[in-house]
Amino acid sequence: MSKAQIEIDHIGIAVESLDTSYPFWKAIGFNEDKNPEVVSDQKVKVGMLALANNANIELLEATQADSPIAKFISKRGPGIHHICLRVKDIHKILNQLKALGIKLINESPVKGAHNCLVAFIHPSSTGGVLVELSQKQNSKDVL
Amino acid sequence: MSKAQIEIDHIGIAVESLDTSYPFWKAIGFNEDKNPEVVSDQKVKVGMLALANNANIELLEATQADSPIAKFISKRGPGIHHICLRVKDIHKILNQLKALGIKLINESPVKGAHNCLVAFIHPSSTGGVLVELSQKQNSKDVL
Repeated sequence: MSKAQIEIDHIGIAVESLDTSYPFWKAIGFNEDKNPEVVSDQKVKVGMLALANNANIELLEATQADSPIAKFISKRGPGIHHICLRVKDIHKILNQLKALGIKLINESPVKGAHNCLVAFIHPSSTGGVLVELSQKQNSKDVL
Repeated sequence: MSKAQIEIDHIGIAVESLDTSYPFWKAIGFNEDKNPEVVSDQKVKVGMLALANNANIELLEATQADSPIAKFISKRGPGIHHICLRVKDIHKILNQLKALGIKLINESPVKGAHNCLVAFIHPSSTGGVLVELSQKQNSKDVL
């Protein structure tokens, strides 16, 4: 089986509270993120747990009642919210998904954190998994 | 933020059917697992999607109606079932979790695939995430 050139970037976990989540993750051996980032657009505070194979677990706490994370928790309870895959050519993949009739949340990539292009794929077309694609953008690239 | 010596090993996804799941994952760029492994104990057939950073996505199809995967799907629908973290000292971590009162599915490690020791942690103690710990076992080690 040859390996695809796709990496896991992060696993996003919806949590009620970063503070009450940390004792479990620290007992496994993770370090607490002392400077959780607030992402205003998404109305979340993100606690990063760094994995050794170039990936992260992201603990996602809602900062407002109408945050997507708050809605997810009220519907399904806390737990895994999405996975993010690092890809080489996000435009090509989105075209391939469109050709299959896959439902995309972002028809075109949008600007994400860390100078990446990202796009979400709707779980109704993936077998129940909210999948984020992410591509590192060169500084010369234009959206 | 220093990195923990913990790696993501795999993400387990409960699927209705491997065959109907592949078109989506192949459109992203994964290769189809032509030889899915049947794990009789767990009553599942496992389709491996290899990631480039030493991890896998495992598509899990129930082989019997009383498979844990069939039960999961009937309760929650298809989607992410568990995450597996590779750790260096599973016994030490399990002791740390016990000291915190974390509910363990396996109080002691059990033998998993590929000569690993594994233990599952109950989602009621982790914030809704079924977490598997896995440690590569040296051939000289005894369970």
